[in-house]
Formats: sequence, structure tokens, C-alpha cells
Amino acid sequence: MEANVQAEKGQLSIHTDNIFPIIKKFLYSDHEIFLRELVSNAVDATQKIKKLADFGEFNGELGELKVSIKLDEEAKTITISDRGIGMTAEEIKKYINQIAFSGAAEFVEKYKEKEDTRGNIIGNFGLGFYSAFMVAKEVEIITKSFKDGSEGARWICDGSTEFSIEPAEKTDRGTDIILHIAEDSEEFLSKYRLTEILEKYGKFLPIEIEFDEKIINNPTPIWVKAPSELKDEDYLAFYKELHPMGEDPLFWIHLNVDYPFNLTGVLYFPKLKNDFSARKEKIQLYSRQVFITDEVKDVVPDFLTLLHGVIDSPDIPLNVSRSYLQADGNVKKISGYITRKVADKLAEIFRNDREGFEKKFDDIGLFVKYGIISDEKFGEKAKEFCLVKNTQGKHFTFEEYTAQVKENQTDKNDTVVWLYASDLQKQDAYIQSATKRGYDVLVFDSVIDPHFINGIEYKIEKTNIKRVDADTLDKLIEKEIKLESVLSKDDEEKAKNLFEQTLGGAPKLTISVEPMPTDELPVVITIPEFIRRMNDMAATSGQKSMFGDMPQMLNVAINANHPVTQKILNADENEQKQLVRHAYNLALLSQGMLTGSELTAFVQQAVSRL
Amino acid sequence: MEANVQAEKGQLSIHTDNIFPIIKKFLYSDHEIFLRELVSNAVDATQKIKKLADFGEFNGELGELKVSIKLDEEAKTITISDRGIGMTAEEIKKYINQIAFSGAAEFVEKYKEKEDTRGNIIGNFGLGFYSAFMVAKEVEIITKSFKDGSEGARWICDGSTEFSIEPAEKTDRGTDIILHIAEDSEEFLSKYRLTEILEKYGKFLPIEIEFDEKIINNPTPIWVKAPSELKDEDYLAFYKELHPMGEDPLFWIHLNVDYPFNLTGVLYFPKLKNDFSARKEKIQLYSRQVFITDEVKDVVPDFLTLLHGVIDSPDIPLNVSRSYLQADGNVKKISGYITRKVADKLAEIFRNDREGFEKKFDDIGLFVKYGIISDEKFGEKAKEFCLVKNTQGKHFTFEEYTAQVKENQTDKNDTVVWLYASDLQKQDAYIQSATKRGYDVLVFDSVIDPHFINGIEYKIEKTNIKRVDADTLDKLIEKEIKLESVLSKDDEEKAKNLFEQTLGGAPKLTISVEPMPTDELPVVITIPEFIRRMNDMAATSGQKSMFGDMPQMLNVAINANHPVTQKILNADENEQKQLVRHAYNLALLSQGMLTGSELTAFVQQAVSRL
Repeated sequence: MEANVQAEKGQLSIHTDNIFPIIKKFLYSDHEIFLRELVSNAVDATQKIKKLADFGEFNGELGELKVSIKLDEEAKTITISDRGIGMTAEEIKKYINQIAFSGAAEFVEKYKEKEDTRGNIIGNFGLGFYSAFMVAKEVEIITKSFKDGSEGARWICDGSTEFSIEPAEKTDRGTDIILHIAEDSEEFLSKYRLTEILEKYGKFLPIEIEFDEKIINNPTPIWVKAPSELKDEDYLAFYKELHPMGEDPLFWIHLNVDYPFNLTGVLYFPKLKNDFSARKEKIQLYSRQVFITDEVKDVVPDFLTLLHGVIDSPDIPLNVSRSYLQADGNVKKISGYITRKVADKLAEIFRNDREGFEKKFDDIGLFVKYGIISDEKFGEKAKEFCLVKNTQGKHFTFEEYTAQVKENQTDKNDTVVWLYASDLQKQDAYIQSATKRGYDVLVFDSVIDPHFINGIEYKIEKTNIKRVDADTLDKLIEKEIKLESVLSKDDEEKAKNLFEQTLGGAPKLTISVEPMPTDELPVVITIPEFIRRMNDMAATSGQKSMFGDMPQMLNVAINANHPVTQKILNADENEQKQLVRHAYNLALLSQGMLTGSELTAFVQQAVSRL
Repeated sequence: MEANVQAEKGQLSIHTDNIFPIIKKFLYSDHEIFLRELVSNAVDATQKIKKLADFGEFNGELGELKVSIKLDEEAKTITISDRGIGMTAEEIKKYINQIAFSGAAEFVEKYKEKEDTRGNIIGNFGLGFYSAFMVAKEVEIITKSFKDGSEGARWICDGSTEFSIEPAEKTDRGTDIILHIAEDSEEFLSKYRLTEILEKYGKFLPIEIEFDEKIINNPTPIWVKAPSELKDEDYLAFYKELHPMGEDPLFWIHLNVDYPFNLTGVLYFPKLKNDFSARKEKIQLYSRQVFITDEVKDVVPDFLTLLHGVIDSPDIPLNVSRSYLQADGNVKKISGYITRKVADKLAEIFRNDREGFEKKFDDIGLFVKYGIISDEKFGEKAKEFCLVKNTQGKHFTFEEYTAQVKENQTDKNDTVVWLYASDLQKQDAYIQSATKRGYDVLVFDSVIDPHFINGIEYKIEKTNIKRVDADTLDKLIEKEIKLESVLSKDDEEKAKNLFEQTLGGAPKLTISVEPMPTDELPVVITIPEFIRRMNDMAATSGQKSMFGDMPQMLNVAINANHPVTQKILNADENEQKQLVRHAYNLALLSQGMLTGSELTAFVQQAVSRL
């Protein structure tokens, strides 16, 4: 073998000329992040000086510690100033000139035996600083260390890999970062834009932030305080801070856990009503009081995104892929913890204030139901306090409701049948019939109910859930003893044939003759539960049903015992047809299915009889 | 001044130990990208050897040039092999050991005088390679250069910054990249998962890609061919390749532009029907045949995302922030170009095949209308070919329609009134009345129509658009000459009072007496256009109307000339009330507004009269 490949070992090196534009471009997809990073660094330096004073390693005057941001539109600069620990020239060389050397990590390492400082250090100094070059064509640092006898230093870099450093006059301890904004980033030279970014990321930073002569943040938001220090007013006031235009929330949960992960926060239950649009981007994720994102869908289960509020955790990995987040052990634990806390809170309110819970259920029902069908662990707990409501407005737990209707609504197969209506207006005739029979009818009229019914039906033992117009009452709840028909078998057959001939043109009708009470309608139209449910689910999920848009299978039940049926059998042929058509039209009308030219003709006929 | 700060200049350096984990973590948020990067590199190396052969700088046998991917589940490795240019040990040191040194850039630099090679080089060698460390704990390169007398070399690195390099036995020219997959990435050790990723990113790579003994790609997709070489069957076959389950598209546009930007692609018009859900993620964005994303919403105007197909452009900046994309000059030009091409194509079909265009309009109408209301430039062109359809199914352009109805439907203020229905079933009675009067009625029943009507109304000169049930016909189109009332002013007043007293409980009724033809209903209920439109728009945009859910203002017009009105005036007090209530109920029924217990009572009464 020729010797043109020599075995050797070596160190990878990074070609700075190439990596620098990549850092600028890839580091954050959103360029406005530069301000978050630089202000976080300033806060970090400020917290360090406080910490050093606590440890007795800094004995000077702390003075006013706020971080200030200044915009000079004419000079096209943004300046971020702090009165933190500052840097010596040596430290600049160490922390700034070597990209990605993390100052914070070293600081924590040094002081970790003294107390847990981890929670007080924001970010990594090195890389975040370089996000400045996403928007600046030139960056200046003017800094003076807190250390006795330190001298000011000025570092400057024009975005190439060359820097220069020189002595600088600076009386105060601390650091000024001066950004000379690049032409393609002049959008940031606007008071309005900077205020927007600062309010987004810095609203709850732990050190006062001043911009445009105002303090823009609340350094001690309620989630960093102990629940025992807080009153209801505090929680409500904080909610108003997050959602100035929002209605008061129903209640809230204060999250606070140290082990096995770090998490604080407050979650609010908003008034949801029947409205999924209240959701989305209403939980904010913070890391040590720095706003990170309002997209928490990969951190908490989907149903929890209906809540509002704040989660603060340094243990949620950021800027990594979604699949990674979902597989992350901490994220799973955090998600499980929040779910459990929420279920416990609901159970507690249910136990301690049943009446209040019932009043709130119109607003939290959507949430509870969504949780039950989408999260098994939540479902286990929630089936104890999830409520159903009947047409009289009375609430029941699943267990209570089964106890309530068991006697009257158990069918011959020993299955308890829950009846429900999805629209009190449209299904009024059917509700009235069921009520006359002594049956109870539930109201399931929310967007989630079609899915909810499917989700709970098999979980509640020996129970069927049927819409009140899914069949004639005798068939909805089949009993051993049936009402008898006053018609002979022959007459029943005759009636059936007559309807079939007259309504022959109508699509997919299944016509039968059933004995019903005389105060029912002469003809009752029903749509089988299965078909209807498929259609409902398809409609709310935005997909087309495999059965098409309209319910295609209609059951037409002729009431054997109604006097009109007798009248039809005895009438002459012409009158028979008219009566059949009219009775059928009235049944369609009851189902809200008489429309178009048939309705117009029906109305015109009715007018002519006035 | 003390001398502890020395003025100096220097070079920034990157601390490799720290940057490496950051590259791994930040480079791509989606870890599966590693395969796209490595396969792209292999394709790149293969295209280079072809290019060198073309230039006469490589005179050996090219042989079979496919790139192959092998999975070894037991050894936990994935191997990507090519027969491209390979690397010498020197080149490894140059391209691999110095992170982010772009080999492709240098190659292009060297050969750029010979011909435009830019379009054939995928990506930058250096950084993409390092994405391997997102999933591998150890990476091996076994490679042999195409250069005469070259010897094989093996490079290995365990994800620290140390590498080793040694001679290797390799007979073939080319490169094998062997990934020893890390524990947290074992999801990628699955044939199914790798197939999924390869099909996502590599379906149209320009060199054959083999995995699991199959070629997974089509190296010459139609968009790289000249339109003149292609037949309709080719376009349809390619559509099936993109959407195997999809219905055939209606037609397509072949995009092909070199200057001032590079763009190729094919956009298909799907059958949209009345369905916005057909949209979303159906346009794929490629860069030199490498799949980049199916989220093109920042590259093309929103209404164009209803189309399906492929756009391939090396000129769209990737991996940058949304606000940056939207402001990017190239992106704006590309977006404008596509919009213009689409409008031109539609105009062409309209001119050359009016009948075909009308047939397709049910499917493309949603698109055209959305374009008109959301994109001014498209709107300018589209108003020439956008069609409206009347209840007889006849199509008109805006201009044609105004000409058609001008004579009959111009009101006393010289405004042409377009009448429309949004639901042929529900508004049947009103449509019948308008038709009897010789008026034409349009059908606006798509989800976008409420917005479309608002959008076009002020653009068409002297035109009002009113729903057919927005008022009584005489008021919808007010003429100089009015029908006369057979009632005296006194009787009209009497009738009005009677209705007001009887219907006093109903909310927000505005009752009036109007002379109408005798074949109209005795009572007509209408909802003012403005209120209705607000409600419609609120419903389709998912927001609550400021007027609440139900139309609260109803106009009740008593037909002065109907015999029933005469009958009511002459009846005794009891019968008067019954007749008023009944006539009102029939009017509600016509509007689909008689529901709930009132409908149940109405039906029961009707049954009792059978």
C-alpha cells in the first residue's frame, strides 16, 4: 500500500469565516430574539452582582440595579446598559472573543457549593451575545468590572471575525452594549417595535427594565411567590395583566414543584362556553421569567391548551424538534404533573362546592369532556365529577344519572338507555313525546358532544346512549311488554303498502307500522342513531361522512293506533293519497326536513285553507 | 490611566468544545433532516463526477452511479454510499475536519467559467455533514478519490472534537458514510422510518437512490423537462405520483423562469368544490430537486395555497424567519410571477373554451373568488372571467350579468340590483316570488360568498347585491311606479295594530302593511340585508356577531292586497287573533324560523284538522 494516507489523530477545527454567517442566520429563526438575549444577559450580570453581594464577595454599593434600553433613531443605535458585574479586558477576551464559551456555566460551577444559584442564571453568555449580529452591522461593548481597581474597556467588532479592544473611560460598574443597526434590520429602530418586543419577552424579567422612561416589567409576578402569600385578588389582578380584555377566570391552580423537575406557574380556567376558539396561545412558557413561547402544544396535552396562564420551567428543553420534545422524559413528567394537578383541583371544587361546580360546568364542560376523550389518566379521575345535564337543567354525575333513570329506562336486555337531544328547538316534538312517556332527556348540544358520547358510551357499563329521534320510543327502549296495535295484521299491511305506493318517489325510506299511543303523531320519522352519529362526527371534524351530507336512511313509522291511520284506511283512493302525503309532510316538518319547493307548496296550501 | 487594558486587534475564535453540541442541537429542529443532508451530499458528489467527465477531466469508467442507503438493525448502523468523486486524505482534512468549509462553493468557483454549474450542486458540504451527529454517536467515512493513484482513507469521529484518520482498503471510487446510531435516535433504525424520510425528501432527487433493494426516486420529474416535450398524460401521471388517491386535477400550469430568479414547477388546479379543506400542504417546495417543505404560506399568497403541485427554486431563502421571507425581494417577485401566470392561464381557458370553463367553475370558483377578495392584482385580471350563476344554472361574467338584468332590475335611483339566494331549499318561497315577478336570482351558496359579495359590491359600478329575502320585492328593487293598495289608510292602520297587539310578545318585529300581488303570501317575513350579512360573515369567520347569534330584527310585511288580510279585518276578535297568528306562523315557516314548541304545537293543530 502506498503511503499517501498517514494514520493520525487530530482536533476538529471550526472555520470561523464560515461559521459566523451561519450562526447569524441559523441561530434563531426570529431575528427579534436578539433583544431577548441581550436583555437576558444584562439581567444575568445584574443578578450575579446581587449574588456576590449576598456571598460577601462584593462589598461596594449596589445602587440602582435596573437595566435600561435606549434607542437613538438618528445614530441608528440601540444600547442595552446594566449595572451588573461588568467585565475586565481579560474577561472580554475569554467570554466574547471565544464564541460559545459559556460564562454562566462557569459561574454556576464556581458557586454551586454555596447555594443553588442555578435558578438565578439566565442563559449562556457566549452564544446569545452573538445574536446581536443578526441585526447589527457593528457591535460595541463598553464595560467596567466590579472588581477593585478595574478599568473600563471598549470592544468593537464589525461582524467580520476581527475585533479590536482598547481602554475606555467609564465611571460606573457594568456593561453597555451598543448595536449599530444594519440596513436590513431598520425595522428595529422604532420605539413601537422595541416596546412590542420588550413587552413580549421581558414583561416578567426579575430585574427592572427601563425603556422610553418607563419600567416595562413586573419583576415579581405571582408565580414566583408562595401561594400562602397570595389572595384571590392577586390572582385575578395577574390574570388582568395577562389578558386585559378578558372576562374573569372561573378559578386557578398554582403550580409549584422542585423535584424531580423545576416548575412554577399559574393556570386559569377561562369561561369557555361552547367555544373552542377561546384556546390557542393562551398559556405562556417562561424559563426563569424570560418569555420563551406561547406554543405549548408539545409540552402539555392538547386539552390543557384550553387553559390560560403561565408555566415557568428551566427544565423544558427549548429549540429542539417536536418529536424530541414529545419523547423527552422531563416533558412527559411535567405534562403528567400538570394533568394530575388540574384533575385534583376540579375534584376538590366538585366535593367542596357542588352547587358552584354545577354553575361553572357550562364553561368547563367542554374542557372536562375533551380531557376525558383524549387523556386516559385524566379520564379516570374525571368520570367521578364530569356532569351531564337534562332538559330541566338538572345536573348529574354518570353514576347519579344511571341511578336516576335506571328504573324507567332499562330495556329488556338489562341495558340502561340514556336519551339525549342535541337541539332543544329542532327536536322539541320528540322531547315532548319522551317526556310524556316519563322518560328523561339529556342535553348534548356542544361541539364536542358527538365525540364525547362515543368516548364514554363503552366506558359506562351496560349503557346505551341514543338521540331522542333515533327511533320510535318503543324501539329506543324496548320493553318486554309492548303496546298493542288496534289494527289487524291485514290492515297494517294495507297501511304500509299505501304509504309505500304514495311515497314511492322518496329516497331510502323504511316504512313500518308501529303501535304507539294515540297522542303521538300519526307518522313519526326517525334517523338511526348510528347513521346520525357518523354524520355528526363528520360535521364537527370537518370531514365528509362516508354516507354523504344528508341522512339518507329515514325510518317512517306509521302509528297504528292513531285515528288518522284509521281514517286513511277508510278513505277513498284520492283522499287516501292526500292524507298520506299530508301526514308524511307533517312528520317531515317535525323533523325540520320539509324544505324547498315542498315547503313552499305546503305553505301555499295552508294559506288557501285560511 | 493604568495600563491593564492594552489596545489590540485580534481574531474571534470559536471554542469547538462548546459549538459542537450547539450545532447538533440548533442546526435543524427536525433530526430526520440528517438523511436529507447526507443523501444530498452523496448526490452532489455523484453529479460532480458526471460534470468532470463532461469537462474531460475524468476519463475513467463512470459505471452505475446510484446512491445506496443500507440499514443494519443489528449493528445499529445506517450507511450512505455513493460512487461520486470521493475524497483524498487531504480533502477530508480540508472539507471535514474544518467544520463549515463549503466544498461546493469552492467547486463552483473553480468551474464557473466552464458553464453554469450552480444549478447542479446541492447544498454546502461542510455543515450538512455534521447533521450526522444529531443522530449518530460515531461517524465513519470510508472514501476513495476519483483521482488516479488515490488510496482509500477511513476517518472516524465519536462526536467529541477528536477524529482519527487511517488508510483503508477500498476498491471502488466514492464515499461510504457509516452512522453508528445513538441510543436516543434508535427510531431511525427502522426500515419503515427510513423509507418514510427518503420518500419525503428524496422522491425526486436527480440521481437514482436505492434503499431496501428498490429505487425510491424519480430522477427526472416533469418539472425539469421542457413543456414542449410533455403531453397531458404526463402531467396527469405526475399528479397521481404526488397524490395517488386524488381525483384528477382540472388543469395545470407549467412554471419556468430563469430571470430575474430561477423557478420551475407545475401547479395543478384541483377540484375544490365548496371545500376549503382541500387546501393545506399540497404545494411542495423543492430546491434543486431536494424536498424542503410543504409549508409554502410565506412564499405564495394565501389563495394560491388552494392549488396543488411543486415549486422548485434555489432562490427562495430557507431556514430564515417568516418576517424576513415576507420582506425578501426574490420571494415577492416569485409570488407576483406565480399569481400572474395563474391569472393568465385562467383567462386563456376562459377565452378559448368558455363552455369548459363554465363546467369547471363550480370547482375553481372558490379559488377565483378568494383570489379576488385577497389579492388586488389578481382581482384586476379575474373580474374579466369570474362567473356568477343564476338559479337556472346559467353562468355570466359581471358585465354580462349587469347587461342581462339591467332593464328589469334597475331601481328608481338608477342602481342595478342583483338578487341572490344562499340556500335554494330554505329560500325557495322567496325565489319563487321573485321569479314570478320576472326577476333573476343568483346563487351564492359557497362558504366564501358572504365575503365575496362584500368584496365585489363596491367594485362594480352602481350595483347593489341583496339577498332575495332581505325585503319585500317592491322594496328590494324600488321602482317609480308602485303597486296600489286595495286597503284604505284606515284599514291599513287597523291591520298593523291588530298584528302588533297579537304578536306583541315576539322580539323586535317591525310590522308594516305593503301592497303586494295577491299571489304572494298574506304575511312575508324578511331580514334586512345588512344584519344578515354581518351574521353570515361572523358565522364563516368563526367569530361571534356583534348582533348575537340569531337575526334579531325581523320585518313583518302584511300583504294589503291578499284576501286573507281582508278576511282578518272582517272577522270577530277571537277569529282575528287566530288568523293573525296562523298567517304569521306560515310566514315564519317559509323562512325556516318556526321551531321548537311553536312548531310542535303547529303540527299538532294541523294533525287535529286532518
